[in-house]
Amino acid sequence: ADIRNAQDYAALAPHFMAPSHHAYISGGSGYGLSVAANVAAFEQWAIYPRLLRDVSAGHTRIELAGERHAHPLFLAPVAFHKLAHAGAEIDTARAAQAVETCMIASTQSACSLEDTAAAAGPQRWFQLYLLPRREDTLDLLRRAEAVGYRAIVLTVDAPIQVANRRALAAKFQMPPDVVSVNLRGYDIAPRFAGNGPSDSRFFQGAMRGAPSWDDIRWVMSQTRLPVWVKGVLHPDDAVALRDEGVTGLAVSNHGGRSLDGAPSGLDVLPAIRAAMGPDYPLMYDGGVQSGSDIFKALALGADAVAVGRLQLYALSVAGALGVAHMLKLLREELEICMAMAGCATVADITGKALFKPAR
Amino acid sequence: ADIRNAQDYAALAPHFMAPSHHAYISGGSGYGLSVAANVAAFEQWAIYPRLLRDVSAGHTRIELAGERHAHPLFLAPVAFHKLAHAGAEIDTARAAQAVETCMIASTQSACSLEDTAAAAGPQRWFQLYLLPRREDTLDLLRRAEAVGYRAIVLTVDAPIQVANRRALAAKFQMPPDVVSVNLRGYDIAPRFAGNGPSDSRFFQGAMRGAPSWDDIRWVMSQTRLPVWVKGVLHPDDAVALRDEGVTGLAVSNHGGRSLDGAPSGLDVLPAIRAAMGPDYPLMYDGGVQSGSDIFKALALGADAVAVGRLQLYALSVAGALGVAHMLKLLREELEICMAMAGCATVADITGKALFKPAR
Amino acid sequence: ADIRNAQDYAALAPHFMAPSHHAYISGGSGYGLSVAANVAAFEQWAIYPRLLRDVSAGHTRIELAGERHAHPLFLAPVAFHKLAHAGAEIDTARAAQAVETCMIASTQSACSLEDTAAAAGPQRWFQLYLLPRREDTLDLLRRAEAVGYRAIVLTVDAPIQVANRRALAAKFQMPPDVVSVNLRGYDIAPRFAGNGPSDSRFFQGAMRGAPSWDDIRWVMSQTRLPVWVKGVLHPDDAVALRDEGVTGLAVSNHGGRSLDGAPSGLDVLPAIRAAMGPDYPLMYDGGVQSGSDIFKALALGADAVAVGRLQLYALSVAGALGVAHMLKLLREELEICMAMAGCATVADITGKALFKPAR
Amino acid sequence: ADIRNAQDYAALAPHFMAPSHHAYISGGSGYGLSVAANVAAFEQWAIYPRLLRDVSAGHTRIELAGERHAHPLFLAPVAFHKLAHAGAEIDTARAAQAVETCMIASTQSACSLEDTAAAAGPQRWFQLYLLPRREDTLDLLRRAEAVGYRAIVLTVDAPIQVANRRALAAKFQMPPDVVSVNLRGYDIAPRFAGNGPSDSRFFQGAMRGAPSWDDIRWVMSQTRLPVWVKGVLHPDDAVALRDEGVTGLAVSNHGGRSLDGAPSGLDVLPAIRAAMGPDYPLMYDGGVQSGSDIFKALALGADAVAVGRLQLYALSVAGALGVAHMLKLLREELEICMAMAGCATVADITGKALFKPAR
Ligand SMILES: Cc1cc2nc3c(=O)[nH]c(=O)nc-3n(C[C@H](O)[C@H](O)[C@H](O)COP(=O)(O)O)c2cc1C
Ligand SMILES: Cc1cc2nc3c(=O)[nH]c(=O)nc-3n(C[C@H](O)[C@H](O)[C@H](O)COP(=O)(O)O)c2cc1C
Ligand SMILES: Cc1cc2nc3c(=O)[nH]c(=O)nc-3n(C[C@H](O)[C@H](O)[C@H](O)COP(=O)(O)O)c2cc1C
Ligand SMILES: Cc1cc2nc3c(=O)[nH]c(=O)nc-3n(C[C@H](O)[C@H](O)[C@H](O)COP(=O)(O)O)c2cc1C
Repeated sequence: ADIRNAQDYAALAPHFMAPSHHAYISGGSGYGLSVAANVAAFEQWAIYPRLLRDVSAGHTRIELAGERHAHPLFLAPVAFHKLAHAGAEIDTARAAQAVETCMIASTQSACSLEDTAAAAGPQRWFQLYLLPRREDTLDLLRRAEAVGYRAIVLTVDAPIQVANRRALAAKFQMPPDVVSVNLRGYDIAPRFAGNGPSDSRFFQGAMRGAPSWDDIRWVMSQTRLPVWVKGVLHPDDAVALRDEGVTGLAVSNHGGRSLDGAPSGLDVLPAIRAAMGPDYPLMYDGGVQSGSDIFKALALGADAVAVGRLQLYALSVAGALGVAHMLKLLREELEICMAMAGCATVADITGKALFKPAR
Repeated sequence: ADIRNAQDYAALAPHFMAPSHHAYISGGSGYGLSVAANVAAFEQWAIYPRLLRDVSAGHTRIELAGERHAHPLFLAPVAFHKLAHAGAEIDTARAAQAVETCMIASTQSACSLEDTAAAAGPQRWFQLYLLPRREDTLDLLRRAEAVGYRAIVLTVDAPIQVANRRALAAKFQMPPDVVSVNLRGYDIAPRFAGNGPSDSRFFQGAMRGAPSWDDIRWVMSQTRLPVWVKGVLHPDDAVALRDEGVTGLAVSNHGGRSLDGAPSGLDVLPAIRAAMGPDYPLMYDGGVQSGSDIFKALALGADAVAVGRLQLYALSVAGALGVAHMLKLLREELEICMAMAGCATVADITGKALFKPAR
Repeated sequence: ADIRNAQDYAALAPHFMAPSHHAYISGGSGYGLSVAANVAAFEQWAIYPRLLRDVSAGHTRIELAGERHAHPLFLAPVAFHKLAHAGAEIDTARAAQAVETCMIASTQSACSLEDTAAAAGPQRWFQLYLLPRREDTLDLLRRAEAVGYRAIVLTVDAPIQVANRRALAAKFQMPPDVVSVNLRGYDIAPRFAGNGPSDSRFFQGAMRGAPSWDDIRWVMSQTRLPVWVKGVLHPDDAVALRDEGVTGLAVSNHGGRSLDGAPSGLDVLPAIRAAMGPDYPLMYDGGVQSGSDIFKALALGADAVAVGRLQLYALSVAGALGVAHMLKLLREELEICMAMAGCATVADITGKALFKPAR
Repeated sequence: ADIRNAQDYAALAPHFMAPSHHAYISGGSGYGLSVAANVAAFEQWAIYPRLLRDVSAGHTRIELAGERHAHPLFLAPVAFHKLAHAGAEIDTARAAQAVETCMIASTQSACSLEDTAAAAGPQRWFQLYLLPRREDTLDLLRRAEAVGYRAIVLTVDAPIQVANRRALAAKFQMPPDVVSVNLRGYDIAPRFAGNGPSDSRFFQGAMRGAPSWDDIRWVMSQTRLPVWVKGVLHPDDAVALRDEGVTGLAVSNHGGRSLDGAPSGLDVLPAIRAAMGPDYPLMYDGGVQSGSDIFKALALGADAVAVGRLQLYALSVAGALGVAHMLKLLREELEICMAMAGCATVADITGKALFKPAR
């Protein structure tokens, strides 16, 4: 089949994965309301073409928190690439390197963070989940530093695991060979269960182990790497995190996999950008399927945009080649939008480039 | 089948009930416009996740009109549980007791209010319909007081019975063993038929027997129990009822079973809350299918939220166990929303927790 | 089959009519856009139930332009009832009389206006189309006066006949026995064809014979009967017609049978009412299918409401009985809405009775 | 089959064309989002009928940039009519002449601009694409002048060719006999490919050859013909082009065939008209399927309206006769709207003629 747009990989993926794996990956928490919201949010916007502008020196390069990237497109941290393809994170990392894309490696992976780092390009970041014991978290952090990850992305938006109903319906089970190798040797048993007489297994259970402001400060005190926080949707949280000294934020509803019914990050992005001022680094993820989606997120306030599921879809279809091709297509789709919209640089992409039909 | 969410009971119920019973229960008056509106009203809203908040002391306890409840979730008064399951109100009451839920027992039931009270927990309320003769109404009230119901919920929104077209299409008939035992011995023949030469069977018929302001005052004068009024949708009615001294109000369109085409209570709730000020007790019911629905109703101004049909669905599937499980699931779903939204208590749930996408 | 709501007649009609007749009647001009708009316009609104109001003296009587009517429900002028049932206008008129409904007899009918008048009740009106020759129009007017029609409704909104695509697709042809008996002996050949070299068959054809302001004045000068004008959609036209001395206006898009793409009358009714002040007589028609539709039109500014197609549907199903039953159902549905909304009289029905959900 | 409305040709076309040709023509770039937006944009509006106005001297004549046209309906420049019918541009031109319609002949055609000019009526315009070499562009321009084209329409909105996914899926290939005869002998090989090490094939490729402000000025300096620019969607571009001295603008998203996701021209037309003042010549195209669409575009600010695909559809169904008939139908549909809306002239069609339902 002809693959013309990055989104074609999403259409092809079901033919390359076990149905239950596909359900697990494509689904969201609960009824998938926030997954659907992510897509609908993009559909509200149109892009103004602009005429006769000279964009012949155009490029997609950006500087983000002091670092240069070939383009504003990132690979979002996604657990267990092995579900999509045996090559797993290592293949993804190779692809990312080939097309100059910064990969954000997830804590949760069946390849070690060291192996992934070795395959990835110089721009590689590490997504950190806080572990029950600080010494374990610290060890993980040190290992990430040791193999040259250049930023830490602390994901704090999923303190509770809400079941993915599509995965359940498809009877998804994590295959035995897909284990979180990075966490081997750490004590990851949940500390709290909330099973006292009048305890809630959420308030007195999972939430006791949830990340706190103190944890954020502690992580920042332990590393010289830039620390991003992932999963912000409310402007007040964004402001508070910035005031705490966090390097940048990922505006995200976790691909609709955390609170089912959370807004799409895209819908709240303008308010967050307005609260943060023009210069604070913001990344966006959720529902990105095309270069025009990337363009829209940039126009609405993001400095960079990450794709989640698409990387697994492309990986399932054609391994490293698929991921590289998908990223190349996305980048070209973005370039087309930029060129047509008369934007020679990413900085030229502003809210004025978008039109919102009344419908 | 796996039951993961309270709403699963709605999906399963058709397999556990006669089709005509299901049509009668799930349908609304007329074409079901208000039933549909109840569901659509919730879909307009998203819930903001909030980060890093300490909710480890979180709980769902509320104080409502001076009484403590383990959570803000009530069982709405629903007639004739026997249509769903032989265990009927007694099973429902047992379930409610097991999970510390206040049941509002309906006047219309095939178990006596005394038997239901015996099975229910300490928090039990009684829903009163005014009978044609005041002495009968008074007798009913005294019986409710005698067996320890702790509040009276006077339902005043259904002076006219409008046919449920789905029930009619399914040829629903009340089974012979489903009779209103509470009303045995009372004179319940309608007083007025509106069959004079130029009479309307509504204006000069049913509406002559409809509840009046005088009736409200009379009921309040006859009991020391708190008196709630159920079925309010207009802010002016709410204000007038409060001024009359009513304890609290149930904002409700009677599950879409009274005036077909009435607004969803959820859509009018904010205006009613605004008219009443922050402290006046308001309950909401209509279309609640999940913990996030409960969260939204609380955020939009309710102090407590009742479920109607879901209890019958759960009862039909698994009797008392089903109802208890359904309530537990709802409560957990609410806790998840609260935890994710950074709300440690029900009082923390305000309109600021919601986001309304432009679509 | 059980007939519970007036609308049931619409559902049954296809079983009682030739498909091509049904297509002709149910269809609108062109693609039926305005037919669909008429229905959608009602769906935007909900009706507020109000509590505890004394409506036991309630009634639907109205006074319209000095005349009393048992209720605000009229039969819109509809051509050729014979397409629906052999009893035709005479059956409809009998039904109208039986349930005290004012019938507006169309100029275009296969029963003579005299026969229809004889069968109709005291409240009967005559809908007039201007004929090519004034002497013929005058003769028609005199005949209508002679048999006691009490008002003239001048329809001016259909100067051009736009094809009904559904009727065409169903190969509808007017049956040979359905002829406009009222016009026998008149010269009704179109005066203008617009077939000069650069002529338009609309501008220089049909529109040359279209009603003018002068015609309106002339009709009013020729009769002492109240003269209504039917087919108004723009507030400026409404104001100009009132200033000309017209008794009342029918806000109508001709059931979506004139300009395809015209707004629904319901959507423009509030602006017209606002322009006319509270007292000027306004009738509404278009898309009315239920008592709640009538209630909504009254709330949005109409003093009376007419049904078009529904009368033919009921006629096709059960002749005079069907029409009488349909009208009785509509009236009862209206009474239910009024009673539930706490409106004892039609005058109590105002815009405050409606709620518009944000969706 | 009965052809009653211009739009019927769209429905019939698939029966008269190879599926892949139909896919190529009917599709848009990418996923066809802007094609769909063009249709949806019209559906938002209704047209107010107006009563009793004398339009018997009505006509559709317009003066546009000093030239008279029998009506405001143009044939948009469309490449390769041969895909639809062997008669190709020559048949279309004959039809246009027969019904006094100005055809805008495309640079891209399998009939020579000379042959097309010979078949077309006195009002014929030429759509110019800039060629890689100015001398070639100039030659083309001179040829157009030589055979009496009366205006130049410079299309500048498609610097990048975005794949039409429907055409790809249907495996469309340009047939070998469909070649751009106008360009024979010119050097049309793209100048830039963007294949340097870090080059983008868009920024450093296609966009290097894209039209510039300088090109606009150069074209205007080379001809005394009026120069229109086609493909404007942003008011700022419109203002800048006017300030440059361009005669008129075609507000257009290229029939959804350039940037997929561009707004519909209709949605942006009012803002462009507002920016340009009442007198500046504006043409609209995109999604026009009926006379009411033409009416709406005129009401929203256009002085004239062009149809694209419809001409190919009609051509495929019945050659020159089809195109002439389609144009006649469109014109009559427009006349009906005008007559019903009380507009005797195109100038009478203003925004006040439209109504926007709240839905
Ligand atoms: C299968 C899957 C696994 C994920 N695992 C992680 C993870 O380990 N850490 C994390 O921060 N986010 C994780 N995410 C969320 C992604 O980083 C990202 O927010 C989301 O996928 C973006 O939405 P999209 O998939 O629509 O592009 C995961 C998402 C998916 C689909
Ligand atoms: C089958 C059925 C019977 C009901 N009977 C009563 C009743 O006896 N008294 C009453 O006040 N409300 C009654 N209601 C209305 C409920 O109290 C409540 O308002 C409604 O069911 C809430 O909507 P939900 O079913 O969507 O949760 C009944 C509702 C249903 C579905
Ligand atoms: C079959 C048919 C014939 C009609 N004939 C006439 C007519 O002769 N004169 C007239 O003023 N209106 C005529 N109308 C329009 C109606 O008076 C009325 O405006 C319309 O039917 C109201 O819409 P409804 O059918 O949705 O109720 C006709 C409508 C229909 C459906
Ligand atoms: C098959 C096809 C070929 C086209 N070729 C050209 C062209 O050569 N030059 C041009 O300026 N526009 C071209 N257009 C765009 C049209 O001029 C016009 O903008 C568009 O078709 C209007 O939308 P409609 O097809 O919905 O009426 C083409 C459009 C189509 C459908």
